[in-house]
Amino acid sequence: MKDTYEVPSMMTKEDVTMMILSAKKQAGLTWEGIAASIGMSPVFTHSAAMGMNAFPMDKAEALVTALGLPQEAASVLNEPPTKVWEQAVPTDPCIYRFYEIVGVYGPTLKALIEEKFGTGIMSAIDFDMSVTRVEHPKGDRVKLEMSGKFLGYNSW
Amino acid sequence: MKDTYEVPSMMTKEDVTMMILSAKKQAGLTWEGIAASIGMSPVFTHSAAMGMNAFPMDKAEALVTALGLPQEAASVLNEPPTKVWEQAVPTDPCIYRFYEIVGVYGPTLKALIEEKFGTGIMSAIDFDMSVTRVEHPKGDRVKLEMSGKFLGYNSW
Amino acid sequence: MKDTYEVPSMMTKEDVTMMILSAKKQAGLTWEGIAASIGMSPVFTHSAAMGMNAFPMDKAEALVTALGLPQEAASVLNEPPTKVWEQAVPTDPCIYRFYEIVGVYGPTLKALIEEKFGTGIMSAIDFDMSVTRVEHPKGDRVKLEMSGKFLGYNSW
Amino acid sequence: MKDTYEVPSMMTKEDVTMMILSAKKQAGLTWEGIAASIGMSPVFTHSAAMGMNAFPMDKAEALVTALGLPQEAASVLNEPPTKVWEQAVPTDPCIYRFYEIVGVYGPTLKALIEEKFGTGIMSAIDFDMSVTRVEHPKGDRVKLEMSGKFLGYNSW
Amino acid sequence: MKDTYEVPSMMTKEDVTMMILSAKKQAGLTWEGIAASIGMSPVFTHSAAMGMNAFPMDKAEALVTALGLPQEAASVLNEPPTKVWEQAVPTDPCIYRFYEIVGVYGPTLKALIEEKFGTGIMSAIDFDMSVTRVEHPKGDRVKLEMSGKFLGYNSW
Amino acid sequence: MKDTYEVPSMMTKEDVTMMILSAKKQAGLTWEGIAASIGMSPVFTHSAAMGMNAFPMDKAEALVTALGLPQEAASVLNEPPTKVWEQAVPTDPCIYRFYEIVGVYGPTLKALIEEKFGTGIMSAIDFDMSVTRVEHPKGDRVKLEMSGKFLGYNSW
Amino acid sequence: MKDTYEVPSMMTKEDVTMMILSAKKQAGLTWEGIAASIGMSPVFTHSAAMGMNAFPMDKAEALVTALGLPQEAASVLNEPPTKVWEQAVPTDPCIYRFYEIVGVYGPTLKALIEEKFGTGIMSAIDFDMSVTRVEHPKGDRVKLEMSGKFLGYNSW
Amino acid sequence: MKDTYEVPSMMTKEDVTMMILSAKKQAGLTWEGIAASIGMSPVFTHSAAMGMNAFPMDKAEALVTALGLPQEAASVLNEPPTKVWEQAVPTDPCIYRFYEIVGVYGPTLKALIEEKFGTGIMSAIDFDMSVTRVEHPKGDRVKLEMSGKFLGYNSW
Amino acid sequence: MKDTYEVPSMMTKEDVTMMILSAKKQAGLTWEGIAASIGMSPVFTHSAAMGMNAFPMDKAEALVTALGLPQEAASVLNEPPTKVWEQAVPTDPCIYRFYEIVGVYGPTLKALIEEKFGTGIMSAIDFDMSVTRVEHPKGDRVKLEMSGKFLGYNSW
Amino acid sequence: MKDTYEVPSMMTKEDVTMMILSAKKQAGLTWEGIAASIGMSPVFTHSAAMGMNAFPMDKAEALVTALGLPQEAASVLNEPPTKVWEQAVPTDPCIYRFYEIVGVYGPTLKALIEEKFGTGIMSAIDFDMSVTRVEHPKGDRVKLEMSGKFLGYNSW
Repeated sequence: MKDTYEVPSMMTKEDVTMMILSAKKQAGLTWEGIAASIGMSPVFTHSAAMGMNAFPMDKAEALVTALGLPQEAASVLNEPPTKVWEQAVPTDPCIYRFYEIVGVYGPTLKALIEEKFGTGIMSAIDFDMSVTRVEHPKGDRVKLEMSGKFLGYNSW
Repeated sequence: MKDTYEVPSMMTKEDVTMMILSAKKQAGLTWEGIAASIGMSPVFTHSAAMGMNAFPMDKAEALVTALGLPQEAASVLNEPPTKVWEQAVPTDPCIYRFYEIVGVYGPTLKALIEEKFGTGIMSAIDFDMSVTRVEHPKGDRVKLEMSGKFLGYNSW
Repeated sequence: MKDTYEVPSMMTKEDVTMMILSAKKQAGLTWEGIAASIGMSPVFTHSAAMGMNAFPMDKAEALVTALGLPQEAASVLNEPPTKVWEQAVPTDPCIYRFYEIVGVYGPTLKALIEEKFGTGIMSAIDFDMSVTRVEHPKGDRVKLEMSGKFLGYNSW
Repeated sequence: MKDTYEVPSMMTKEDVTMMILSAKKQAGLTWEGIAASIGMSPVFTHSAAMGMNAFPMDKAEALVTALGLPQEAASVLNEPPTKVWEQAVPTDPCIYRFYEIVGVYGPTLKALIEEKFGTGIMSAIDFDMSVTRVEHPKGDRVKLEMSGKFLGYNSW
Repeated sequence: MKDTYEVPSMMTKEDVTMMILSAKKQAGLTWEGIAASIGMSPVFTHSAAMGMNAFPMDKAEALVTALGLPQEAASVLNEPPTKVWEQAVPTDPCIYRFYEIVGVYGPTLKALIEEKFGTGIMSAIDFDMSVTRVEHPKGDRVKLEMSGKFLGYNSW
Repeated sequence: MKDTYEVPSMMTKEDVTMMILSAKKQAGLTWEGIAASIGMSPVFTHSAAMGMNAFPMDKAEALVTALGLPQEAASVLNEPPTKVWEQAVPTDPCIYRFYEIVGVYGPTLKALIEEKFGTGIMSAIDFDMSVTRVEHPKGDRVKLEMSGKFLGYNSW
Repeated sequence: MKDTYEVPSMMTKEDVTMMILSAKKQAGLTWEGIAASIGMSPVFTHSAAMGMNAFPMDKAEALVTALGLPQEAASVLNEPPTKVWEQAVPTDPCIYRFYEIVGVYGPTLKALIEEKFGTGIMSAIDFDMSVTRVEHPKGDRVKLEMSGKFLGYNSW
Repeated sequence: MKDTYEVPSMMTKEDVTMMILSAKKQAGLTWEGIAASIGMSPVFTHSAAMGMNAFPMDKAEALVTALGLPQEAASVLNEPPTKVWEQAVPTDPCIYRFYEIVGVYGPTLKALIEEKFGTGIMSAIDFDMSVTRVEHPKGDRVKLEMSGKFLGYNSW
Repeated sequence: MKDTYEVPSMMTKEDVTMMILSAKKQAGLTWEGIAASIGMSPVFTHSAAMGMNAFPMDKAEALVTALGLPQEAASVLNEPPTKVWEQAVPTDPCIYRFYEIVGVYGPTLKALIEEKFGTGIMSAIDFDMSVTRVEHPKGDRVKLEMSGKFLGYNSW
Repeated sequence: MKDTYEVPSMMTKEDVTMMILSAKKQAGLTWEGIAASIGMSPVFTHSAAMGMNAFPMDKAEALVTALGLPQEAASVLNEPPTKVWEQAVPTDPCIYRFYEIVGVYGPTLKALIEEKFGTGIMSAIDFDMSVTRVEHPKGDRVKLEMSGKFLGYNSW
């Protein structure tokens, strides 16, 4: 019966991610380079290219132009993403270490934020982050900086 | 039968945490202040006071003196901790937001660390962290800085 | 050995919750009544009395006076809480139905918020809620109203 | 052997959801607009279009006409859905915040419903909901209103 | 410090359950007999005695009189319960078999209810149940009868 | 390499379920009607058509004739099924309510079965069930009746 | 307030298990020996002594006499147990190996039972089991024998 | 790009399982019969045919000959399997009952093995098992016999 | 009622672990030192002292003498342990790294064992292990050596 | 619509793993042999061939040459892998035994590492491992040797 109707398919964020990865590999680009070419940070650029964030429309168009993607990809990159991760406890060691830091230092972060600001949280929405390589005689270090707006609990 | 032998009890890290919290409350101290008085960072001081890290012996003794704890507490604060967290997905909103950041940005952190350093991870052991309050006209912000040694995968 | 030192105990939020529940029962009060007497909403009052929110200091003192609690309870009611729930999927039918609503309508809420505001979320921190009984000929209805600040995702 | 028989395929709710999303994108419609055109609320319209609710037959036909879907889609939209969500704890931040509200305020909702109505629950079946944007000088707010019939526990 | 205040304790549903079980054992009663003496069904009587339902006030008082419990127990039996079960998949074979029936026949119950009533559910709130022993030449049988109000999904 | 051999495919219970659903839809049948035409109960008929039970061979053949299925389908319908359900806690509200009933009343069913029969269980294998619509002035009710053989625990 | 009423405590199966273990150790008995002295199998005797099965009343009394337990223990040993195990996947290696056998050979047991008997199961209720040591030149072996009544699925 | 290289496919254990099931059905064989024809037990034969064990090479070749499978299948049947089961708690009733037996009697098996052999386990590797039908006037019984080498814990 | 009988308490492995830890701390011993004094390896000694293994009787007595424990402790140290770990995924970083190694290299260990020995496993029962510190110019290394008997799968 | 654009596909680590396995089978090679031919250890070679590690570029090229893989495979083998394992508790017996060793001996490894090195961990990144067959009169043994750099916790 299926031939009496047709289920349309739509370009998805997964499709566009594949296009970006393929164009990046063929052109020998880096995330730093791609981010610089559209005037955004590498963290946000990678995250939105992977489909975990939405590019502002002008940045989406800049990326489409820079990488030679089909025009329709720009609107897809601008769509709100559904953020899904399937491993409640991540297994990849590079990601697990950050999970471990949250497990070990989570109560400390909470206590110090409360001491400095009062009862509330650091926003993960009004938020930015960067990763830097810092030279060090005993071995270079990864520097990670996050900044999020403090949100105080309402009482009513 | 239990009366024919006696099960000894030993001062635990939980006991010392209670002593610290009680002394802190009675003296009206802050974690910043306690940390400054022993010459350590607030993050490490809180974390070790909660039993998630071990104080170096001289710092443990300084803390015992500063807060008027029993002498035995210093060696307990210096013991290696067993780091346990019971909620694979934390429920407290202030801690959950950090878990969410790892879920959303974990693959991004991995990609950028690999781009800058090669295949490997940021150490969560040779590691330090700070929390700062940054004034901002649209609402003050929490600034979180981490630094960990890059560890490249061995091949053999 | 335990006798050579003493582990201090501190008044906890659980202790104060028991004091409130006992005073409420003996005085035959309602949550509506308690909330009105301190000038707060019933939702926030119950939640903070259960230890899931922190009363502002003046409200904490008003509650302590209203219910005849020990003075120390006010500062405990003002402390930042650690919000823990142990059942990822709640079993009590009255709470489960709200979980079910999030399961069934979660993607709908997301789509409509994004349609009206752009990519972002409703804050669960800068947030308030009320519960009302609405008369209805086919059976009275529970009316639940929530309001949370819209937080748009940052891009950087 | 498979060629000696044929497994029929039937139009599914997933198929119709894809048709709706495609038609909506091509025509540049909104959920508000689609809902208005068939005289239903945006919440119910989106939810049933996603396959989590069943449209009444006349509304299903109105939607099929409005979007130019194949006629068979109307009966599919009218079929009872099987409501499945795969993440017991949702990861998308916009949905998680509602899960968090149920975790934090669930016992409060239960206590206040019981205080106002007696032992029972708010129905998630005889239920409706709306989402509104409310302007606010400190940032616009999401207003969420739910109404469900109170159901008192039977005793027998 | 704990001696400067006292945490009150209140009679709980668990306390009353223990009182009922002890009185039942000493008097050699059955659940059938207890239920008959207060004019309720055995299912509801056992369930409320275990703290999973609330007795109407007159039935609570009748039970307190019948079993010689302290007067305060009546109001405790009348309080709304929090229904908690800790094993998502029950292990006791007698209970597991009912879980298995839901797993095997759940989709069938859904299909037949929808065929007979339209889209909706059987209420587990406006609900009653009985258990009977039915003699049978090949081995007596357990007969379980449930009745719940049909609730049709709202559309709006 | 795959072309040097061929992996045979066999008609599966899923295939036959699709054939039944398609034939049922095209002929406008109900489960009641199908069940009546082969002289079985609607509960068992639906369950076996979904692949959760095995039809006796004569009933399988009657069904194949009634719905015009390929002859091979009869032996497939007669094969022992592997009963799998993937959601330990079902999400569909119509099925969840039965799960909830097992959670709330499981210990009660156990206690009453033991009181009436001694230590043992109700069989979920030597078992039958029916669903009926019962008219009621305050809203029609779903009546569910199960009967299972009592199995007493062996002691040896 | 607690002093105005008293919560009775009742002898539990856990209490009796402790009494049995203590008496067994003091008298230097084995499970084989205890089982022989009351005319039951070691498997059932140990299982019921651990509170996972109920002794027939005469056997319970024989055990109480044999081990010099208080008279009340006999009726406790005769009560229906609630069978609970807390580790869905057991960790102890001796028990895990049996879990592994069910994982590896479960589908095989199902296929062979169905081949020999038709669609159905082996009862775990009308069931017995024994453990024997079998001498073997390459190392003695554990022989485990189970026998359970075949239960064929009903169709109706 | 995929056309510039080709990903080879290899005959898998799943492929061979399908070949065996298809040949068995077409020839109207039983597992008993197949096992007898290659001189192995039905339990091992079924298990290895399902891909949960490896046939010795001569038996693999005998099976290939007996069922007319392609020659390459013999080496696949001889490869070490990866034993995976996806349901930590099996749902099929016939398999669940064995899981239940491990849950209920696991500690008993452990205690009796330790009593007869000392501290150690029954091997699940140096292991065999059989299933027999035993006639019984009250209903035939499934007899399950397992034998595994006792392995005593090393101390060093 | 509880006063009419007494529940005996027995010295447990947990009790003896506390005695050992207390004696070790007071005497300033190391695990290496304790192990040497009884002629066993540090790995086995620590593991059995923690209650995860059973000391041979002569070693148990030697330990009791060496540390001045009550005589009854020797038989407790000799009892078969029940090996329980509560975190399926360990959180302590020192233990998690070993879990990670099993996750990453598990399939490799399996492949190489099978290549060298045929289908089978390394025993975790007939097994020993040691930990050594190895000096290294770029930082000392932990050397871990395990040896377990190869167990080939039976076929029958 | 999909025909207006094309989603590129890229050679994946899974593709290359299939190429390696196929070439290995056709050439009748062993992991030992492949590893020797490129001058790496069998553990690392297998692990990287399975996609759980990255080959250094020269080794990747050597492997491509040795096995006759397409040139593009070398760069794929050199890409950083994402290490994922799906079973938190592995089911294959050969892998489970290592999981069991971590469960039983994890706290022992932690205690001995801390005794020898101070508070810290063994790195799973700066790490190597080997597997050897050791002849033994009572049955050959698997010898597993791991070495990882000790990493001491920072304090700051």
